[in-house]
Amino acid sequence: MEFTLTQIAQILGGSISGDSTIKVNRLEKIQEAVAGSITFLANPKYENFVYETQASAIIVSKTFKPKQTIKASLILVEDPYASFTTLLEEYTKILSFSKAGVEEPSFLGANSETGENIYRGAFSYIGKNVKIGKNVKIYPHVFIGDNVTIGNNCIFHSGVKIYEKTQIGSFCTIHSGSIIGSDGFGFAPLPDGTYKKIPQIGNVILEDNVEIGANTVIDCATMGSTIVHKGAKLDNLIQIAHNVEIGSNTVIAAQSGVSGSSSIGDNSMIGGQVGIAGHLKLAKKTKIGAQSGINKNITKESSTLSGTPAFEFNKNMRSYSIYKKLPDLLDRIEQLEEKIITLKAFI
Amino acid sequence: MEFTLTQIAQILGGSISGDSTIKVNRLEKIQEAVAGSITFLANPKYENFVYETQASAIIVSKTFKPKQTIKASLILVEDPYASFTTLLEEYTKILSFSKAGVEEPSFLGANSETGENIYRGAFSYIGKNVKIGKNVKIYPHVFIGDNVTIGNNCIFHSGVKIYEKTQIGSFCTIHSGSIIGSDGFGFAPLPDGTYKKIPQIGNVILEDNVEIGANTVIDCATMGSTIVHKGAKLDNLIQIAHNVEIGSNTVIAAQSGVSGSSSIGDNSMIGGQVGIAGHLKLAKKTKIGAQSGINKNITKESSTLSGTPAFEFNKNMRSYSIYKKLPDLLDRIEQLEEKIITLKAFI
Amino acid sequence: MEFTLTQIAQILGGSISGDSTIKVNRLEKIQEAVAGSITFLANPKYENFVYETQASAIIVSKTFKPKQTIKASLILVEDPYASFTTLLEEYTKILSFSKAGVEEPSFLGANSETGENIYRGAFSYIGKNVKIGKNVKIYPHVFIGDNVTIGNNCIFHSGVKIYEKTQIGSFCTIHSGSIIGSDGFGFAPLPDGTYKKIPQIGNVILEDNVEIGANTVIDCATMGSTIVHKGAKLDNLIQIAHNVEIGSNTVIAAQSGVSGSSSIGDNSMIGGQVGIAGHLKLAKKTKIGAQSGINKNITKESSTLSGTPAFEFNKNMRSYSIYKKLPDLLDRIEQLEEKIITLKAFI
Repeated sequence: MEFTLTQIAQILGGSISGDSTIKVNRLEKIQEAVAGSITFLANPKYENFVYETQASAIIVSKTFKPKQTIKASLILVEDPYASFTTLLEEYTKILSFSKAGVEEPSFLGANSETGENIYRGAFSYIGKNVKIGKNVKIYPHVFIGDNVTIGNNCIFHSGVKIYEKTQIGSFCTIHSGSIIGSDGFGFAPLPDGTYKKIPQIGNVILEDNVEIGANTVIDCATMGSTIVHKGAKLDNLIQIAHNVEIGSNTVIAAQSGVSGSSSIGDNSMIGGQVGIAGHLKLAKKTKIGAQSGINKNITKESSTLSGTPAFEFNKNMRSYSIYKKLPDLLDRIEQLEEKIITLKAFI
Repeated sequence: MEFTLTQIAQILGGSISGDSTIKVNRLEKIQEAVAGSITFLANPKYENFVYETQASAIIVSKTFKPKQTIKASLILVEDPYASFTTLLEEYTKILSFSKAGVEEPSFLGANSETGENIYRGAFSYIGKNVKIGKNVKIYPHVFIGDNVTIGNNCIFHSGVKIYEKTQIGSFCTIHSGSIIGSDGFGFAPLPDGTYKKIPQIGNVILEDNVEIGANTVIDCATMGSTIVHKGAKLDNLIQIAHNVEIGSNTVIAAQSGVSGSSSIGDNSMIGGQVGIAGHLKLAKKTKIGAQSGINKNITKESSTLSGTPAFEFNKNMRSYSIYKKLPDLLDRIEQLEEKIITLKAFI
Repeated sequence: MEFTLTQIAQILGGSISGDSTIKVNRLEKIQEAVAGSITFLANPKYENFVYETQASAIIVSKTFKPKQTIKASLILVEDPYASFTTLLEEYTKILSFSKAGVEEPSFLGANSETGENIYRGAFSYIGKNVKIGKNVKIYPHVFIGDNVTIGNNCIFHSGVKIYEKTQIGSFCTIHSGSIIGSDGFGFAPLPDGTYKKIPQIGNVILEDNVEIGANTVIDCATMGSTIVHKGAKLDNLIQIAHNVEIGSNTVIAAQSGVSGSSSIGDNSMIGGQVGIAGHLKLAKKTKIGAQSGINKNITKESSTLSGTPAFEFNKNMRSYSIYKKLPDLLDRIEQLEEKIITLKAFI
């Protein structure tokens, strides 16, 4: 993906000083920039790099006055840092959605439809009666089961598996290896010690703007739907069990797990390796520290908890600081016991 | 998958009141039922829904006397709830095994055989000298390595990877992304600080009726076999290391891990995110609370443990309740120390 | 893979007693050896098996004097155990690299090059501008994104996904389902409670001799590189976040996670299910016990820690032993309180 400085100046509403026909194909920090890259100068303490860098172009402030000659072309803007961030976002967006067309062999089942500007990578598989919107990017080795519906502007990276009947909104991204809609873990014990499988006939619903990391698993509901509400962001290797509901704009860090039928309120923040037991309800804006275990409802909004089982974060930290000194506490108790004996002898 | 009411009444041994030619294609709770679905009435407090529902058919008790007209057809049975469950199981079984035939392109290596009623999805790969029984469903992107043997009535969902020499019994289900037979984690330290790989030449054996969730990993044995005994059920994202043995009818919840050469007795229940250290032996019917860490043998059957390192569950809960009050305990010790000083001054 | 005894004797520098044309195709312990296998006798207490085994060949000491007739052929060597280990390593190496050629259909993008003795399995996908060295084994369903570079003698098992721009050295092995280069988990909160994605434009670098287990995830850097230095070994289901750096010859057990921008020193040993918070620096030769949580820098080399949050291992074990007796401690405090009251009454 290459851009001319003219294109970039247009995106940023900036002006060019130097060769405007130069092309750049990467964005880098000024300390690390190589030929072919565009970089920026925001913090004056990095100014020296401006004169030494191999970068092809540098975004600088309109008010910047060079003290030496500069090899690179300059793009002059109001706020170099903000401009670089804008460029980064624009670049990523273009790059993410740059794949298009159908690579062969790929599989498209009967009665399935895809919208305009689709990418279907080689070895991708789309089952029957699938409806897919426009500008959706389906990488190689993605599996989309029968009767799935998908909105617009979604990206499914290589190896994503979406079970039948899953419903996915627009602007969703799922990273490689994540599984959406596998069976919930439901088995009824029989008198002889064996287990009978409880049928799992529900589905998964991902609303708009949901992003899911790599190798995460979201099980389908036993009946009804497991739901991830709009704007929620899930990291890698997370377990979401059957009939769970994840609130809007809730973020969950890697390797956490939510057990069956629990719901997490909107705008919550769940740390890494957290475990949440089944059939619980967590209020909005709950914050849970990494590696904690939640075993009861959280009814108060904006609570912060930690520990296994978790309780109020500050209280846990206080208890833990004493836990670390338990040998000292034990000593003090033993000394008290001795002193009592001594005192008793006196009276 | 569509069924006529006549077919369903036959399965359930019930009689029909209304149009018996109606077709249904989904099962739903009466509160959520839409046109085309069959539902049931077991709890009288839901009776109102019977008159309002859009469902095409309702399973009701033979003794049910409607108070208003009902739009849906009725199937009259002895026990509506049990009948619905039967129907659910039958429906799931039929659905699960409904795929058949070979989709192209798919890969079948030399000297490999598959039994009748096989499904081999597009982009599935079967290596050399593989023996597969009848009624086995191999979804797209499944990999089956050389010299694997598989019994009858197994389902491997999209993206399952089975390394060479694995042996799988009958009636096994493996969900998407699970890996069976990857190398055990064995490296011998050398004097220069680097590691030399210890060859992992064993395999994995899954006995009959084993179900494995999504993105779980079972490593092959260093030599010999890693074994999951019959009827064991493993959830998602579980780690089973080399040479581990999982007992019959043992269930393990998501994100738990069992380290090398440990064995878990029959009919045990392991919670989520549990860690079990290596070279341990856990007795039958062991129950381990979520997030616990096991670092020694469990010799007594039917033990219940929790904590890291784990000990008897009830004792841990008692200790933990005091842990939460450690700041109070510290206060009381300080008060005692002061009182002792005061008392000393008196004598 | 079959070997004649003559071939094996050559590898081991041993001599043959018996039929040298016999072929063997598996290595087994003497207690478990079947026809067609080669085994060994190192420990004299297993000598009886030598006379009973169905093995086709046995590696024995040059000084071994049989007390009965032996059906199997013998290979006489200096040190039978060391010879068997050598044979095991040789066998595994040959086996691991035995696949060769290109199975169809497979996908090779424009301007991509592969070296001699490549294996590209059916349904493997290699993007554009990819450079791959010699003797590299790419199993079915592997995805290699655009602009990836790979050295020599690497093995990527079925279902490995390597995102664009990843750089991989020589002698690396990655097991099934592992994801290299997925987006880092970076989202900036906006005033309305939603999140804006922070572009992740960096990559992942795996140096030489890195081995990665199954279903592990290594995210790309936000900018720059996430780096796994040479000789590091990662087990299954591990999470390595963006911009992390794993030191040379560091081993990490299954289900552990390292948060963004943290670095782990060379020759460290991280237990299973460990969590390491973000932006931390761990000194060389750090040892961390299973299930621990690290929330601060570790500046002293060769530290051993455990607990959540982790502190010095021995101190934690001492505190934990008292934690288990907290109910007893509470009793003692209550007794002290009573005694103080009694004493007070006396004066």
